[in-house]
Amino acid sequence: MFHFQGVFPYIVSPLDGDGTVRRAVLGRLSDDLIGKGVHGLAALGSTGEFAYLNRLQKIDVVRTVVEAAAKRVPVIAGVSSTSTDEAVDMARTYEKLGVDGIIAVIDSYFPLTEPQIEGYFRAIADAVEVPIVIYTNPSFQRTDLSLDLIERLAGHDRIRYIKDASSNTGRLLSILERCRGKIDVFAASSHIPAAVLLIGGRGWMAGPACLIPEQCVRLYDLCMAKDWERALALQAKLWRVNEVFNRFNLAACIKAGLIIQRYDVGEPVLPQSPMGSAERDELESLLASLT
Amino acid sequence: MFHFQGVFPYIVSPLDGDGTVRRAVLGRLSDDLIGKGVHGLAALGSTGEFAYLNRLQKIDVVRTVVEAAAKRVPVIAGVSSTSTDEAVDMARTYEKLGVDGIIAVIDSYFPLTEPQIEGYFRAIADAVEVPIVIYTNPSFQRTDLSLDLIERLAGHDRIRYIKDASSNTGRLLSILERCRGKIDVFAASSHIPAAVLLIGGRGWMAGPACLIPEQCVRLYDLCMAKDWERALALQAKLWRVNEVFNRFNLAACIKAGLIIQRYDVGEPVLPQSPMGSAERDELESLLASLT
Amino acid sequence: MFHFQGVFPYIVSPLDGDGTVRRAVLGRLSDDLIGKGVHGLAALGSTGEFAYLNRLQKIDVVRTVVEAAAKRVPVIAGVSSTSTDEAVDMARTYEKLGVDGIIAVIDSYFPLTEPQIEGYFRAIADAVEVPIVIYTNPSFQRTDLSLDLIERLAGHDRIRYIKDASSNTGRLLSILERCRGKIDVFAASSHIPAAVLLIGGRGWMAGPACLIPEQCVRLYDLCMAKDWERALALQAKLWRVNEVFNRFNLAACIKAGLIIQRYDVGEPVLPQSPMGSAERDELESLLASLT
Amino acid sequence: MFHFQGVFPYIVSPLDGDGTVRRAVLGRLSDDLIGKGVHGLAALGSTGEFAYLNRLQKIDVVRTVVEAAAKRVPVIAGVSSTSTDEAVDMARTYEKLGVDGIIAVIDSYFPLTEPQIEGYFRAIADAVEVPIVIYTNPSFQRTDLSLDLIERLAGHDRIRYIKDASSNTGRLLSILERCRGKIDVFAASSHIPAAVLLIGGRGWMAGPACLIPEQCVRLYDLCMAKDWERALALQAKLWRVNEVFNRFNLAACIKAGLIIQRYDVGEPVLPQSPMGSAERDELESLLASLT
Repeated sequence: MFHFQGVFPYIVSPLDGDGTVRRAVLGRLSDDLIGKGVHGLAALGSTGEFAYLNRLQKIDVVRTVVEAAAKRVPVIAGVSSTSTDEAVDMARTYEKLGVDGIIAVIDSYFPLTEPQIEGYFRAIADAVEVPIVIYTNPSFQRTDLSLDLIERLAGHDRIRYIKDASSNTGRLLSILERCRGKIDVFAASSHIPAAVLLIGGRGWMAGPACLIPEQCVRLYDLCMAKDWERALALQAKLWRVNEVFNRFNLAACIKAGLIIQRYDVGEPVLPQSPMGSAERDELESLLASLT
Repeated sequence: MFHFQGVFPYIVSPLDGDGTVRRAVLGRLSDDLIGKGVHGLAALGSTGEFAYLNRLQKIDVVRTVVEAAAKRVPVIAGVSSTSTDEAVDMARTYEKLGVDGIIAVIDSYFPLTEPQIEGYFRAIADAVEVPIVIYTNPSFQRTDLSLDLIERLAGHDRIRYIKDASSNTGRLLSILERCRGKIDVFAASSHIPAAVLLIGGRGWMAGPACLIPEQCVRLYDLCMAKDWERALALQAKLWRVNEVFNRFNLAACIKAGLIIQRYDVGEPVLPQSPMGSAERDELESLLASLT
Repeated sequence: MFHFQGVFPYIVSPLDGDGTVRRAVLGRLSDDLIGKGVHGLAALGSTGEFAYLNRLQKIDVVRTVVEAAAKRVPVIAGVSSTSTDEAVDMARTYEKLGVDGIIAVIDSYFPLTEPQIEGYFRAIADAVEVPIVIYTNPSFQRTDLSLDLIERLAGHDRIRYIKDASSNTGRLLSILERCRGKIDVFAASSHIPAAVLLIGGRGWMAGPACLIPEQCVRLYDLCMAKDWERALALQAKLWRVNEVFNRFNLAACIKAGLIIQRYDVGEPVLPQSPMGSAERDELESLLASLT
Repeated sequence: MFHFQGVFPYIVSPLDGDGTVRRAVLGRLSDDLIGKGVHGLAALGSTGEFAYLNRLQKIDVVRTVVEAAAKRVPVIAGVSSTSTDEAVDMARTYEKLGVDGIIAVIDSYFPLTEPQIEGYFRAIADAVEVPIVIYTNPSFQRTDLSLDLIERLAGHDRIRYIKDASSNTGRLLSILERCRGKIDVFAASSHIPAAVLLIGGRGWMAGPACLIPEQCVRLYDLCMAKDWERALALQAKLWRVNEVFNRFNLAACIKAGLIIQRYDVGEPVLPQSPMGSAERDELESLLASLT
């Protein structure tokens, strides 16, 4: 079994206009990212438009990424639902497709109590054998996870990682201190990866790593080597990608960047729009400046 | 073709523990509500747990209500998605099942621009022949509709109604003034129906009307007769149901009330919980006081 | 002692560029409003820029309005502070200046518990002999009052009115039902006055009544006479003033309107700006259409 | 003229029950903090209850801290108002009292446009000769500063520092990259100081440094020496103070801690409450564990 650490790009879901997953493009992208040294692949995150795909599209995406990875690096897949049963069903389905871990996200419509939220995550973790990454995102999710709840969930044998998609880096230190030895912490694109690794984080799962995988791996290596001076110099350069990414629609931005890099990933799901041309030019010159 | 007006209960979606729609219960409830005088039935609203059901469950619900209504009163069904194509597909599916109107709701994950939102609603309205009720809910939806956008949408031939699920009654008057002759306004359970009818509203679509249909119809008739004094006396009594309803999880509350009334509608979808016993007792004695 | 009911314009605070209160302008405006039939005057509300004035300016405003009213109609003055002691001190000061009631508003910086909020309002009510209007405004205040708290406060002998500056008209009905006989309810400019009077409200306190006092009094009279049809026809016309008012900075809007009406009230306190000329033209033609 | 860097405790405002500033206590506390190595003193921050004090209390606090510091370390004082003129007046007043810098905070009631906000800060910076620290706090302030606005303000000769009281550490890196050479960045208690110094921050201004000044200075020295391993070990321990501090009312927490340390600083301004005894015990044992 893999121990997750390092750089996990949140991979996009390439789609035809009629919604067919472009499996060839997705397979080539997955293969190339592994070739460039990333430590794992995260399918069906926010960047992977999990909120916009139906069940069959999701299965196609996961199957493709798992086959492309061929156990060279771990593949984790996002599960998000308003319904516990549907979430459990999707987690089991992805496990059968061969994923090495599940990122468990809660969606909600009516407000939930903390025991209801806890029950949702435990049901997923009880249903599969692979490790669970719990996910918390106060910007896009209507339900956040308190530190107390995270600490309780960290006591579950299979809940072994957390991906925090807030921009609150102090919260990561609180999680690290409370759950030491029980749960590893991954940063999101709204955190500064080098700062998170300094305080004890294990890596990051983020959309921008799709576009600049080698630079991200280089940054990770510098941090691991505790060469903070060179790490920070590189970090400062790379941060501009996160800034662009966080300013725009995440999926539209990464899809636009991949098209610039000649991956024909198609457009984001309607009613989302592709990036405008001025924004795409800004992104293109930024990417050019980083190579 | 029906012209929508009056009291439209938001009907719950009765489910077995394994997710099977209890079609017999739902059919009997629909029939009884019509027998008690409601002017239409609204399936797959918030109270109908649209956010928690899969495609097949939704189809079962709509089919059941349409068959039970048998064109005695109009049936309208809610469509909500993050994806334009999925919303269009569901609207067409419900139209084939025989609904008399579509309530169009927008779900979102990444923030949307106003043209993107407008495109979503127009795509639904262009796809079907039945009238469209647009729906706006700043409490549960992540995307609200501006007055300018509502006015533009009201220009579409098939967009003929709006259901506003805010608690801002002044907003309804603004819509009425701006879109006079183009769009009729329905209130939600967070508005005072009598006040909305006073200013020109056409009726209300709301979960509580499942539990007290005759009283709601009586209130509507008093308002139509401009007998405001008696309308207000009844309204003040009935408002307590809205207060209870808005304080708790909507679906859990209406399902609990219907079970008290011997409709075996089952529990809300997990991780939602059924109402606690103290709350259920409060609801039971409230309902008893209103008959 | 006055019993408050009817139309209470929230009067602006006319200022020179150096911050001096223009007492002559304020006195003439107060006198004219009374001449046009308003039932009371409310100084130092949001429209009166209470959040922008220092102690001496506030005293000048209150003194001027009290003198101008000369007990023909009641004058009430707003007290708002983060500090209980300061609020008590201001309430006593205004009482000595001769006001007929205090509008008690809570300001906050750090979040407060409900007992802390309750203590603040009780301290003010205990400190003076005149009746207290409690004020609740979820838009501009950082601290809102729950229905439970309002009900407890309504038990205080001197807390006799509430002004609710939300746009949630259902909340007013809940307050009326819970506190029947203990507290009278006044609407704000974000409510539809006719709808609030229909459900049992006592009147409204609002900035726009400075600009269209006679029309407001006429609307009030129609509602009192239960001539709802004519009331609603007038209400629909007047609602456009509330729409404009709520779209712009309240103080800037009313000051601009009064300047159009030849009251030289000066500009809002910096860094607020006066209304732009396009907005002022819109306001001017709207006011012209209402006379 | 001082160049600000290092640890600046946000000093509390000790008050008698009648509101009199306890100048002796405040002077001793200031002197002791300097003796323990802090690099500056920040009066009238959030922790200093600036939002609760009147003009005379503020002047007393500033005068006392300036006299106690006696130019051994820089003293900076917070200016916050809804009114530009009042803010300018307070800044000039503090400058005459001998402060070495002004922390400029904007308060607001009605929403402000960006040019209005910019005008407020420029007016303060134009009015004094001492350097300005601009302050941004999305949690307690109703008005946040965009990166574009910060960049423009950083072009002003006297605007030389920024204190960011968000918890978004990535935002600090964006400010550092955009405004390199024009503005130095200080962290707040919601950031991890070591992480902020890693990315190029200059120090931190925070309430907890009142309670553990020596440990904060030690942490700063370890960061300056780039001894990140020992810095992080100490940081992890000290972070628990920030957690407690951010969980409770800031002023109440620091006042309680200082009373434990035998500074008789009194209670927070009503309607705030002093810390409860359970919370105070938690704080006391935490502080004991850190010495």
